[in-house]
Amino acid sequence: MERKRIAIVGIGLIGGSMALQLNANGIASNIIGVDASPAHLQKALALGLIDEAMDLDKAIANCDVIALAIPVDKMIEILPSILDKVNDKQVVFDMGSTKHLLIEAVRNHPKRKRFVASHPMWGTEYSGPEAAVKGAFENKAVVICNASDSDEDAVAMVRFIYKKIGMHQIEMDAYAHDLHAAYISHISHITSFALANTVLEKEKEDNAIFELASGGFESTVRLAKSNPNMWVPIFRQNRDNVLDVLNEHITQLKKFKACLEKENYDYLLELIENANKIRRIIK
Amino acid sequence: MERKRIAIVGIGLIGGSMALQLNANGIASNIIGVDASPAHLQKALALGLIDEAMDLDKAIANCDVIALAIPVDKMIEILPSILDKVNDKQVVFDMGSTKHLLIEAVRNHPKRKRFVASHPMWGTEYSGPEAAVKGAFENKAVVICNASDSDEDAVAMVRFIYKKIGMHQIEMDAYAHDLHAAYISHISHITSFALANTVLEKEKEDNAIFELASGGFESTVRLAKSNPNMWVPIFRQNRDNVLDVLNEHITQLKKFKACLEKENYDYLLELIENANKIRRIIK
Repeated sequence: MERKRIAIVGIGLIGGSMALQLNANGIASNIIGVDASPAHLQKALALGLIDEAMDLDKAIANCDVIALAIPVDKMIEILPSILDKVNDKQVVFDMGSTKHLLIEAVRNHPKRKRFVASHPMWGTEYSGPEAAVKGAFENKAVVICNASDSDEDAVAMVRFIYKKIGMHQIEMDAYAHDLHAAYISHISHITSFALANTVLEKEKEDNAIFELASGGFESTVRLAKSNPNMWVPIFRQNRDNVLDVLNEHITQLKKFKACLEKENYDYLLELIENANKIRRIIK
Repeated sequence: MERKRIAIVGIGLIGGSMALQLNANGIASNIIGVDASPAHLQKALALGLIDEAMDLDKAIANCDVIALAIPVDKMIEILPSILDKVNDKQVVFDMGSTKHLLIEAVRNHPKRKRFVASHPMWGTEYSGPEAAVKGAFENKAVVICNASDSDEDAVAMVRFIYKKIGMHQIEMDAYAHDLHAAYISHISHITSFALANTVLEKEKEDNAIFELASGGFESTVRLAKSNPNMWVPIFRQNRDNVLDVLNEHITQLKKFKACLEKENYDYLLELIENANKIRRIIK
């Protein structure tokens, strides 16, 4: 396939990592960065993530493909106006963590079919262009949602890009995606935020506690460093699913609490043995 | 210091990793493995973790130092009988995750002063001798508890070993240790176990969910693979502290729940910004 001019809107953790992969795989002839932050654009140029910085309208006018990697509330705000400006050859796709409301927002847009909704399942707790990671998406899953609502050539282009950067692809309805994302990604962030707040609450009384922080603690709490401006809109857009999972999680925690209160250590052993079944899933 | 004959009782994740460090640092002339499982001993010999396998009594009779790395319930069971058999030159120390009840169990033992209570703050979710990791303890913290209850030469020997394997040492009262361990280590395991059970509960309805498992999920849930026979005794011995922390954690989670229920996204942002302060602690 001929190399494409690709605009990346939002040149932070996800957009920057995508830029690195596109560069490494020879998919793009030019990578154009668009970002609300001039400092981010300067950094992205300095790091060699992008070839050129442009404002959004100029980037739309000059690119074959427009990839969106901005917080999901901003995504809903600007996707309709981007679609207003694309022609029947251009392709727009997003890389956000929620899908249903975004797809709803452009359901009746005359250019809906030029848009492909996707979610590459990778991230870290860091943000900004300096957080970009080379090879980040390799061997990870990407979900493509409601593909039948997009033009075939647009889906083919997005599939081509994700294939070239090494992701395995899953098609899924937007509702199913959002439910699964709540279980696989969103709840992990809430538990980490809450665990950090639990320990920080304690730290007020006792500073010595952190001299001891160990590997297990770092691993479970590292997501608590994640950017609130990215995560509040995700939780907001996926509120019902996140609430369901959070209620289930609190129920599960209360089982551990009840075991300890009642000194029922046989049941505690059972709960942990059941949790061990996660070995089937994560190696 | 002259090389010592060192017995390691429990040649699994912790004992095996200690054996690797002792070998690498030339502290031991001989490393003697003791384990209830003949298969573990065979494995430890095959992996070169230990020079020789012995039963406990023979090992006590033949070693200068006896290091205990067994589940904390077993520790309480056998420590008094080990102290019954040591002379005034031998040193016994433990590497368990709880301290108060173990120290209580030998408070009035005539050989109490030959025992040093310690907790090297490292572990993984794996167990058995094949889980041993070289260099595991380097640059991690070790807590030495109630050192004034031990003979000075015994404390000096244990400090010498931990120093040689690269750990920085913290002295702490056993009560304080157990409280801190609840916040820094034990609660992380409960949240991981409960998160695994939350997602496994969902999986009963929908097998597809795990195709999507991402790095963030793996990181928060990996401790859920931890050995129940190690962890139930820890939670049991540290019940009051773990219950306090667990109650606080459930309270923190309910704040997130209330934000979502009431759609109070300003307060949700505040909660996450507060959680971000964990950056001060973990880099």
